[in-house]
Amino acid sequence: MSSLSQSRVLIAGGGIGGAAAALAMARKGASVTLFEKSAEFGEVGAGLQIGPHGSRMLEAWGLLDAALARGVLPGNLVFRDAVTSAELTRLNLGAEFRARYGGPYFVIHRSDLHALLIEAARAAGAELLTGQTVTDVVTEHSRAVLSTADGVAHEADVVLAMDGLKSRLRAKISDDEPVASGYVAYRGTFPMSEVPEGEGITDVVGYIGPHCHFIQYPLRGGAMLNQVAVFESDGYRQGLQEWGGPDELAHAYDHCHPTVQSATDHLWKDRWWPMYDREPIENWVDGRMILLGDAAHPPLQYLASGAVMAIEDAKCIADYAEEHLELGGVDAWDRTLAAVNAERAPRCNRILTTGRMWGELWHLDGTARIARNELFRTRDTSSYKYTDWLWAYSSDRARGARPVASSV
Amino acid sequence: MSSLSQSRVLIAGGGIGGAAAALAMARKGASVTLFEKSAEFGEVGAGLQIGPHGSRMLEAWGLLDAALARGVLPGNLVFRDAVTSAELTRLNLGAEFRARYGGPYFVIHRSDLHALLIEAARAAGAELLTGQTVTDVVTEHSRAVLSTADGVAHEADVVLAMDGLKSRLRAKISDDEPVASGYVAYRGTFPMSEVPEGEGITDVVGYIGPHCHFIQYPLRGGAMLNQVAVFESDGYRQGLQEWGGPDELAHAYDHCHPTVQSATDHLWKDRWWPMYDREPIENWVDGRMILLGDAAHPPLQYLASGAVMAIEDAKCIADYAEEHLELGGVDAWDRTLAAVNAERAPRCNRILTTGRMWGELWHLDGTARIARNELFRTRDTSSYKYTDWLWAYSSDRARGARPVASSV
Repeated sequence: MSSLSQSRVLIAGGGIGGAAAALAMARKGASVTLFEKSAEFGEVGAGLQIGPHGSRMLEAWGLLDAALARGVLPGNLVFRDAVTSAELTRLNLGAEFRARYGGPYFVIHRSDLHALLIEAARAAGAELLTGQTVTDVVTEHSRAVLSTADGVAHEADVVLAMDGLKSRLRAKISDDEPVASGYVAYRGTFPMSEVPEGEGITDVVGYIGPHCHFIQYPLRGGAMLNQVAVFESDGYRQGLQEWGGPDELAHAYDHCHPTVQSATDHLWKDRWWPMYDREPIENWVDGRMILLGDAAHPPLQYLASGAVMAIEDAKCIADYAEEHLELGGVDAWDRTLAAVNAERAPRCNRILTTGRMWGELWHLDGTARIARNELFRTRDTSSYKYTDWLWAYSSDRARGARPVASSV
Repeated sequence: MSSLSQSRVLIAGGGIGGAAAALAMARKGASVTLFEKSAEFGEVGAGLQIGPHGSRMLEAWGLLDAALARGVLPGNLVFRDAVTSAELTRLNLGAEFRARYGGPYFVIHRSDLHALLIEAARAAGAELLTGQTVTDVVTEHSRAVLSTADGVAHEADVVLAMDGLKSRLRAKISDDEPVASGYVAYRGTFPMSEVPEGEGITDVVGYIGPHCHFIQYPLRGGAMLNQVAVFESDGYRQGLQEWGGPDELAHAYDHCHPTVQSATDHLWKDRWWPMYDREPIENWVDGRMILLGDAAHPPLQYLASGAVMAIEDAKCIADYAEEHLELGGVDAWDRTLAAVNAERAPRCNRILTTGRMWGELWHLDGTARIARNELFRTRDTSSYKYTDWLWAYSSDRARGARPVASSV
């Protein structure tokens, strides 16, 4: 009888997903080596929203308290119209919400969550390497062989390809390219004292408007204000090669409420993120390699589930591998990868496609915006019918092992 | 003290609005002459929906029973998605509805309603002339002088300019032109026996879909089926001078449910109605002439209130004239026209602008359509909040005279 503790697992990519997978696999006893191409571990970005689907995973690993200590528990998700600034609807994230979904909704700096996962993975015994670019993965005689840019070949039972949106390893399975949304994101985190308008914000506030939106929430115990501005690029519409620069930001909110316009002063202007996703693909497996995280299913950010999906992937593959390897057989890993693919692809691809639609809903103009606003204003705020599929999901539950949200 | 019975009233245009105004004025004792340019009175068209705002007017004139005898009382207004044919929402037009709005919602052939009003106006003593084209109206020394194409000048206290969408007399007040919507309507009324699909339809059913809609309801006691197909013209989009022909109809519903597609077989193909409205204007008065009906406020048809607005105009000006003339003074007619303009313009202009939006809402595509459908599906069907402004309106009530809908 084989077991996960006799397995060797290689991970390509040391972002949030790779770190989570290294942690999950090492905790189960696997011998894990992770290859990160950057010289140091770190995350570029700002705040990150983690729904209960993510916080339940962190709790299972004993990391939730540490994450919350570095984050903030917002009181509500609040949607406002970006043109009028009027509130459209809110979702109370309090006790009832946490009971339903078995975990809190919180916000945290992306680098704080990443550091936590890296530390925990290392503590669990995973080997975490930097400055290592993975160039190829091939499968020979039921062994995965991972090559790095320095010419070394590393052999393992399985390789988790978690090399992100621009994944080099996805090309072995699919010839698709990232899909430009035409929208660009500007971010900024500033000490609350520098942004007087931010004082007193204890919610995640989203202003949604024609061809743009704007998000605000506190970070680091409320000491920082995190802001994200996302708008449709004029340059992209005009077919320019380079699009979304600060000259576009300067007028992207001219049609919005003064509150929103003045808030956009507090953003980093020296970097921006043209937003891409990819078309959903059904197959993530090539021999003993599986795509996970953004390499398999990079979403637009509208459902705030990109990082969480990668964390879900990590827990799912560790759980499934343990189960299948205990059952034994020479094809235990093959069965694991097939089962993970079958469990996760419908889940993640639904988030991809629904996320696109959710973004379109935010950005409606004219009569469609009026209908959207009315729909938001009149929704039954006691109902969770729009969110259960997203936040009550568990790869455990899908297999009948245990319910996650007791009231679902 | 002057009175309406000493007044002479001329009406330019013998459509539904002109006929109603002739009736309302003659009933109050005025000496009325109506000038219709056609050789015979008659209405081109098919079915017409009359909401309670219109049926209350007919009841006040004692014509409602006769109208209902020629029409149909549908059970519900039903909205369906034209792509899936699924029901989105319905409005029950039964006892509760009738009690709230003080009258029924009914459908009738346009020519039947017109004939009823013409007969009643004639019976009330109005002189109704055909083959008389009004070429001009001028005001001299507090008298209106109406010229006809045969060179005769007719003098009166007041002229009601009710010469329709393409009003010649509106040009004396405003240089605006009809606004093309880019949508074209096809209509058809057929014996129910010729349209097996129509059997059993007792509601007003509206299929609403991307860039099109389709309406069905029974007429003449259920012996006839009335159908209306309205779609965005490809030819108009391409900037063609002539647009909306039957070649366009042939493919306008290709994206819709087979039920809708097959129903479009039963439409007249030898005539069609490119749809126009006009921009709202605030002033309808030029000396002793006032624009009323479509000449003042031609709407798109989405709120089914074009004919009703003209009927409301007729009742309003007769009521106000009676009141002002009893109060007396040389400017009694001037005060009447100003008061009617002040009362009716906000009402009718709201119907114009809301009607445009209501049509846009029906024709949404993509994510906006999904939001619209969800809004319709989840609306509180016990609430009248979207319709009270339209159906509970009364020019009496606005002046504090008497409430129309007891429960409003």
